[in-house]
Amino acid sequence: MDELNRKSVDAFKAASKHPIIAVLENVRSAYNVGSVFRTADAFLLEAVYITGYTAHPPHKEIKKTALGAEDTVAWQYFPKTADAIVQLKAEGYAVYAAEQVEQSISLEKFMGDAGHKIAVIFGNEVTGVEQSTIAACDGCIEIPQMGVKHSLNIATAAGVVLWEIVRHTLIRSDLG
Amino acid sequence: MDELNRKSVDAFKAASKHPIIAVLENVRSAYNVGSVFRTADAFLLEAVYITGYTAHPPHKEIKKTALGAEDTVAWQYFPKTADAIVQLKAEGYAVYAAEQVEQSISLEKFMGDAGHKIAVIFGNEVTGVEQSTIAACDGCIEIPQMGVKHSLNIATAAGVVLWEIVRHTLIRSDLG
Repeated sequence: MDELNRKSVDAFKAASKHPIIAVLENVRSAYNVGSVFRTADAFLLEAVYITGYTAHPPHKEIKKTALGAEDTVAWQYFPKTADAIVQLKAEGYAVYAAEQVEQSISLEKFMGDAGHKIAVIFGNEVTGVEQSTIAACDGCIEIPQMGVKHSLNIATAAGVVLWEIVRHTLIRSDLG
Repeated sequence: MDELNRKSVDAFKAASKHPIIAVLENVRSAYNVGSVFRTADAFLLEAVYITGYTAHPPHKEIKKTALGAEDTVAWQYFPKTADAIVQLKAEGYAVYAAEQVEQSISLEKFMGDAGHKIAVIFGNEVTGVEQSTIAACDGCIEIPQMGVKHSLNIATAAGVVLWEIVRHTLIRSDLG
């Protein structure tokens, strides 16, 4: 069984991925980090970048919610988000922050461009993405939230935004 | 502040909702239930239906992740999912199970119909939606999952599916 799982992990690592990277900046809950790893595995993301004080593997609480996805998904740690953004841009990624600001693009209007590699930064559960990080991004994406609370759980928010981008990729490959 | 919050809760309850109902069948984790309440608040869902041994408010763990959304979102408890489905159909809802079966509609192809009220059933974290429940549904929806794990966290999965339906509603109201 271990052998079998090992093989599927190797096959996963060798498979070509969606050119999408999730960046987690100062995420407080390691459980949320684990859930995002699980989503990144399911949606075949290129990588998860981890910045600031966000927990990174190996980590007991990440393991508990990632259920092994921390072994399949490529990840990289950057103490400073700014350095992650520099690397992403050098690699040809358009970099967006998931944040509610005045100029945010509402998610249903955010169209993944076929030629684009897209990175999305998710920030701290309470304070959101850092101002300096937003300033370095190509733009902000906002999930329309119409209730009293105006905040989704960060792992849920990441799932929603990443799905929206993956969906475009699937529709494009279906058409192509 | 309490007064202010109370008013916004009342305003929320009076506001017209998206005709979408999330049904949680035998969900083991009350934290996941709380997260779905938070998502239901953000996406202005009509209600959350809770069935089987899924925890329902008032509940300490639900409160911890719902962050108050359990007070704004309408919910109803049914010991048997079958009774929830009978009520949903009587109210004009098309009822889908979020489940990976042979006939599942892949989520990116699942188009919310303008005239439709849509309910989606999310099942147990390990065993999924009950067979008898699936048989009583109008169909199944599947989130394309391409990784090794083939399973999203249930609160993330609910966020993704509910977003896909809300997105159609937003695009329609934008066009109309």
